[in-house]
Amino acid sequence: MSKLETAMDTLISVFHTYSEREGDKEKLSKRELKDLLQNELGEFLETQKDASSVDKIMKELDENGDGEVDFQEFVILVASLTVACNSFLSENS
Amino acid sequence: MSKLETAMDTLISVFHTYSEREGDKEKLSKRELKDLLQNELGEFLETQKDASSVDKIMKELDENGDGEVDFQEFVILVASLTVACNSFLSENS
Repeated sequence: MSKLETAMDTLISVFHTYSEREGDKEKLSKRELKDLLQNELGEFLETQKDASSVDKIMKELDENGDGEVDFQEFVILVASLTVACNSFLSENS
Repeated sequence: MSKLETAMDTLISVFHTYSEREGDKEKLSKRELKDLLQNELGEFLETQKDASSVDKIMKELDENGDGEVDFQEFVILVASLTVACNSFLSENS
């Protein structure tokens, strides 16, 4: 597997590590999402230091209503954070 | 860094490994994109064996016109492929 393929594989496995804990095994409950963000994205979110965009993303996820996040929504969240991070790095390089 | 943070870091570094080869260093030319797909996603695309969705994605990228793919478009491509792959794995598990 290439590095990129390993990265995609990681997205799938990290999601399921949390989504399988309780309730619907294919979706993240609010608690599962919070644990995932705290445990898996703590350093990245801290490095980024752009709290407002993270708040914005959290709010958008909350608007989905039922407090459940499916894999597609999770990937969009990770993609948004990665784009924000890339912009931050580009501006500061 | 957590596994997820490493995966996000990989997306950024793989993109730049190819985007910096020629022309705009923040964008992938058609040649850079083709090399990236062939070198970094060969195994994943083959595993998925859903040629039609890959063709669709390639077509959508081509429609952007200038043959240049920026980081955001690249991340959307990787996200789409990862979602397709997760669906494939879910249906076959």
